[in-house]
Amino acid sequence: MPTSEQDFLAAIDRHFPNQAEGVLLGRGDDCAILDAIGPLCVSTDLFVEGAHFRRSYFTPADIGHKALAAAASDLAAMGAAPVACALSLVLPDSVDDAFLDELLAGMAALSTRLGLPLAGGDLSRGPALILDLAVFGRPSPAGVLLRRGTLRPGDELVLIGEAGLARAGLLALEASGRAACEAFPAATAAHLRPEPRLDNGQLLAGLPGVRALMDVSDGLARDIPRLLGLGTAKAKGGSKNLGADLRIDEALPHPEALTYFRSQGLDPLEAFVLGGEDYALLAGVQPSGLALVLAAFPAARHIGTVSATPGLRVNGAAFSHAGFDHFAKE
Amino acid sequence: MPTSEQDFLAAIDRHFPNQAEGVLLGRGDDCAILDAIGPLCVSTDLFVEGAHFRRSYFTPADIGHKALAAAASDLAAMGAAPVACALSLVLPDSVDDAFLDELLAGMAALSTRLGLPLAGGDLSRGPALILDLAVFGRPSPAGVLLRRGTLRPGDELVLIGEAGLARAGLLALEASGRAACEAFPAATAAHLRPEPRLDNGQLLAGLPGVRALMDVSDGLARDIPRLLGLGTAKAKGGSKNLGADLRIDEALPHPEALTYFRSQGLDPLEAFVLGGEDYALLAGVQPSGLALVLAAFPAARHIGTVSATPGLRVNGAAFSHAGFDHFAKE
Repeated sequence: MPTSEQDFLAAIDRHFPNQAEGVLLGRGDDCAILDAIGPLCVSTDLFVEGAHFRRSYFTPADIGHKALAAAASDLAAMGAAPVACALSLVLPDSVDDAFLDELLAGMAALSTRLGLPLAGGDLSRGPALILDLAVFGRPSPAGVLLRRGTLRPGDELVLIGEAGLARAGLLALEASGRAACEAFPAATAAHLRPEPRLDNGQLLAGLPGVRALMDVSDGLARDIPRLLGLGTAKAKGGSKNLGADLRIDEALPHPEALTYFRSQGLDPLEAFVLGGEDYALLAGVQPSGLALVLAAFPAARHIGTVSATPGLRVNGAAFSHAGFDHFAKE
Repeated sequence: MPTSEQDFLAAIDRHFPNQAEGVLLGRGDDCAILDAIGPLCVSTDLFVEGAHFRRSYFTPADIGHKALAAAASDLAAMGAAPVACALSLVLPDSVDDAFLDELLAGMAALSTRLGLPLAGGDLSRGPALILDLAVFGRPSPAGVLLRRGTLRPGDELVLIGEAGLARAGLLALEASGRAACEAFPAATAAHLRPEPRLDNGQLLAGLPGVRALMDVSDGLARDIPRLLGLGTAKAKGGSKNLGADLRIDEALPHPEALTYFRSQGLDPLEAFVLGGEDYALLAGVQPSGLALVLAAFPAARHIGTVSATPGLRVNGAAFSHAGFDHFAKE
C-alpha cells in the first residue's frame, strides 16, 4: 500500500486527469468547485469489502469499476448527464501498490468512458477495503430530471436491462470463485462489471410520457414500491393506494439466469423479481407513451402496470417476498 | 444496530428534516437535487474508527459532531456558504440502536446549527464504524471562493484559531481516556468537538486583500506548503520558489497546550507548528490588507510571512519535521 498520502495522490494523478469541462477547480484544494448552472444531482454509494464484494473473485480493476458503476447508476436513474465524481477510499494494510494501481486503472477507464472526471475525495487507512463514491450530474439537454413517486394507476412499467442475472452471477461466484466466469460469462460479468445506463437514462428523460425512473439495484420486488413512492423515505407526491401487476414469462430472464437458477432447483421467475444489483432501469410511462419508449429501446421490456390496488402481484398472484437487502442480516 | 435499511432511514428522518432551502429534492430518491445556481464547492471527508477516533473516549454524539465538523471545515476553508451534506455510514455489528441514535443526534445538532441539511447518503454493514461526509457549499454573498496557490512573497500569514491544542487533547485522551477532559477541558474539546469556522471563512472571503485560505487540519508544517500550492496536488498558479518564515512565541499556544506539552517534556512551539486537527483557518493576505483582517478578527494572529526562499523557517531556523499525517504509519 502507499506509505503516504502524497504517494497516493501521485497515483491518483497518474490515472485521472485533473481538468475537465464542468469542473472549475479539480483536486488539490480544500474543495473541488463544480460549474453548476442549475439543479445538481448528488448521490453517494458505498462499496464495502465483505458486504458488497470479495477480493477472492473481484480483480482489483473489477472493484474500481463496480464501485463507480453502482454510484453512476444513480445518475442514470434520474436521467441526469454526468458532471464529476469523488472517491473516498479506506485502505487496509493488505492492499499493495500494484493492487491499488489496478483498482484505480479500472475506475479511471470507466470514469473516462462515462465522462465522470474525478474531482476530489479522501483517503484513510482502515480495517477493510472500502470505497465511497460521490457522483454529480445535471439535467440532460432534454432538461428533465426523472423522480420517483409520480406514477398513477394505469401507467406502464418498462424494464431496460436484465433482472436476476447479476444475482445468478453472484451465487455462481460465491460457489465456484472465478471459475464461474467460464460457465456463466454474462451472469458473472453482470455482477463484476455492471454497466451504468447513463445514455439510456438521458434518452428516457427526453421522451414524452416518461413519468418516473429508477435503477433496480435491490431487485424489482423491493424497488417497485420505491418507484411508486411508498415506504419510509417516501418521495413527495407518492400515494399509499398504489400497487403493481407484473407479467413475467420465461422469455424474460437471460438464458444464463434460466440455466443457473434451474440448475439450483430455483424458480427463474422468482429470481427475476427478487434478484438485485443488475442496475437495470425501471421506467414508469403513461399509457400513451409506451409505444414510443419501446421503439426507442429495442431491448426494453414491458413488464407490468401500475394499479390502484396496493401490493405486488406477479401473473395475478400476490408476491410477498422481500428482495435483496445489502444491509439486512441474511 | 438497526436490522434493516428502513429502520435506519426512519432514524435518519427522526433526526434530520428533509426539506431545506437550497435542496430541491431531499432524501428518498436515486439522487438528491441541489439548487446550484453557480459554482458549487464539493468535498468529502472520511472519519474512520481506529484511524481518526476511538469509541473508548469519543461519545456517540462526539463522533457524529466531529465527522461533520471536519468535513464542513473544508467549506470554511474556501470561504463558502453551506448548502447541504450527505452521509455514507458503515456500521459494525457492535453499534446498537441507542449508540446510533446519539451519533445521529450529535450530527443533527451541528447540521442544524451550521445550516448543512442532510440531503442523502448510503448505509452498509462493515468491520468498523466509518463515516464519510460529503459537504456542499456555494460562494458567500461576497462572491469569492478562496483557493490555495495564489500567494506571493511578502504576503502575510494569519491564523484564526488554535494550533497544537487538539493534538494536546488527543495525546491526553490517548493516555488517560475521558478523565483527561477534566484536566484539559479546552484541549480535549478541541479534539472531540472541533468547531468549523464557516462564519469566519465567509467573512474572510469578503475582505479585500485576502488572497488564499485553507483550514489547518494536518498542522502548520504540513499545511503551509499546501497553502503555497506546493506538492503533488499543486493548485494552479503555485510556484516552487515559495517558502515561509514563521514568528512563533510562547504567547501563541493556548495555556492548556503550554501546560500539557511542557508536562511531557515536549517543546510547545514545536507542537504549535506540528499539531493537527485544530481546524483553524490559515489565511494568506497581501500586506496592505493585514490591518483590516486583524481588526475584523480580534482572535486572529499574524504568525509569519511568505518568502521567495523555499522551505519553512521558524524564528529564523529551518523547520524540517513533517506534521501529523493520518495516513502515514506512525
